Amino acid sequence: MSLIKALEILAILVGAFSGFIEARRKRMDVVGIFTIAFITAFGGGTLRDILLDQRPLFWVTHQEYAILIFVLALISAPAIRTLRRVISERLIIVADALGLGLFSIVGVSQALEAGMPIFIASMMGVITGIFGGILRDVVCNEIPMVLRDGRPYAICSFAGCWMYLLMQKVGIPPDFSLWTSAMAISIARIVTWHRGVRLE
Amino acid sequence: MSLIKALEILAILVGAFSGFIEARRKRMDVVGIFTIAFITAFGGGTLRDILLDQRPLFWVTHQEYAILIFVLALISAPAIRTLRRVISERLIIVADALGLGLFSIVGVSQALEAGMPIFIASMMGVITGIFGGILRDVVCNEIPMVLRDGRPYAICSFAGCWMYLLMQKVGIPPDFSLWTSAMAISIARIVTWHRGVRLE
Amino acid sequence: MSLIKALEILAILVGAFSGFIEARRKRMDVVGIFTIAFITAFGGGTLRDILLDQRPLFWVTHQEYAILIFVLALISAPAIRTLRRVISERLIIVADALGLGLFSIVGVSQALEAGMPIFIASMMGVITGIFGGILRDVVCNEIPMVLRDGRPYAICSFAGCWMYLLMQKVGIPPDFSLWTSAMAISIARIVTWHRGVRLE
Repeated sequence: MSLIKALEILAILVGAFSGFIEARRKRMDVVGIFTIAFITAFGGGTLRDILLDQRPLFWVTHQEYAILIFVLALISAPAIRTLRRVISERLIIVADALGLGLFSIVGVSQALEAGMPIFIASMMGVITGIFGGILRDVVCNEIPMVLRDGRPYAICSFAGCWMYLLMQKVGIPPDFSLWTSAMAISIARIVTWHRGVRLE
Repeated sequence: MSLIKALEILAILVGAFSGFIEARRKRMDVVGIFTIAFITAFGGGTLRDILLDQRPLFWVTHQEYAILIFVLALISAPAIRTLRRVISERLIIVADALGLGLFSIVGVSQALEAGMPIFIASMMGVITGIFGGILRDVVCNEIPMVLRDGRPYAICSFAGCWMYLLMQKVGIPPDFSLWTSAMAISIARIVTWHRGVRLE
Repeated sequence: MSLIKALEILAILVGAFSGFIEARRKRMDVVGIFTIAFITAFGGGTLRDILLDQRPLFWVTHQEYAILIFVLALISAPAIRTLRRVISERLIIVADALGLGLFSIVGVSQALEAGMPIFIASMMGVITGIFGGILRDVVCNEIPMVLRDGRPYAICSFAGCWMYLLMQKVGIPPDFSLWTSAMAISIARIVTWHRGVRLE
């Protein structure tokens, strides 16, 4: 299994897990847990593909991911309290940061390939990275955390997308650009979180 | 008028009616009543068609349904209190269950025709059946009822979609599969509701 | 710069500004301010284009508008309190009414060109005019103002769209129809607001 595949699965699992927790906190049933986990994990990429008019959607060609979340929702509903004790917040932040980096750069590169102008491409990267969480919070009847907690989350994604765009502009090989800027996003997120950096 | 057409109109009317009631409960004006009724009646099918990239949308080719809801919103705004007294909860549950069965199976069969893999097709069936209500609750600023009330609603739809998929797999004629599995969903919904069955 | 271009920019700025104010009232950070402003300004047109399956989206071909909102979000975050004092409510209502008229008629004419039946076309006009505000309120965790304040806002848009459709039907030149009905919407909105007209 390639590294990108492993990271992708990790990122989806983390997205789904954050959906589990939020759904459980709202006292949802198993249908709610699956729905919120699914929206959190795939919402950003789905919105990007709808805006770019690209089909088939990511989770349509990879139905194994949808099935994975389905099975996890079934088995984790009773176990979620135990899971939360076992899995530390630090671990979730790190895994989520890896997902943010990876998905943002995948989003921006797909938008470029689809012929988007560069500012729009950078926005598509950020949308891919953050809109799963926004949709999760909207359906859970909360003001989206990412829009109000003042932590550099979307900003890390945005800066990393521009790093990728600039590296592409000056002719650096795509693979190297992708990994470098995805890692830059992840590290920026982890470091600013750890230091408690806040925006105005 | 064919049976499927009659059922379709009934299901749309019930969706619109549940939108009327919710919009009125939130003290919305006539614009809100029409909008919420429309979203409830057509939201699930519209989301499915956007995800599958199919056009024209159902309510675009059948503008008579949109006009019907428009006229109903105009005349029912003052009469909604009387209507609620005349129409019993039992009647609404039954009509809504018929709609759930019909729309779910129409959704899953359209997804199959569009070439979706089977787990995704079953999800599209459930989305068609339940997302109108989810969007209604989101716009009305509530946590969606279907995600948290613990009643087997989405689950009935999901089980019926798989019944249809299996019947198709073993070569049972489409028409017979459609009606049998749609009725199975409706009956499962009505029976579990009547007996007060709850999920974890 | 043509008049329609100037009006368009004005309408987008007003949409973005109402997003700024709402995001600030909800204590969002700069990411939230940009996101809400963007959704308010472009949400209606984006939803219309997704429903009609038209690409590229308006803000993709005009990335300068997205950049403009981005820059404004950056500089206005600290200045928003001052801005609110300088810009009177009356000015906002007038500019917003101009945007409502313009966007509604642009929406209905695009829907007609895309071959929509006329009632659907009138709905697309209204969606273009009002859904930015609805999406803003949904993400900000409020029941959408336009659905419940009882002011003739969507109704002005709807009436103006039908005025346009009728003028097209009887063969009046498109340009003249467009400007007349857009102005009719704007004036109807300003007059009914000024007189405090309320619907049931």
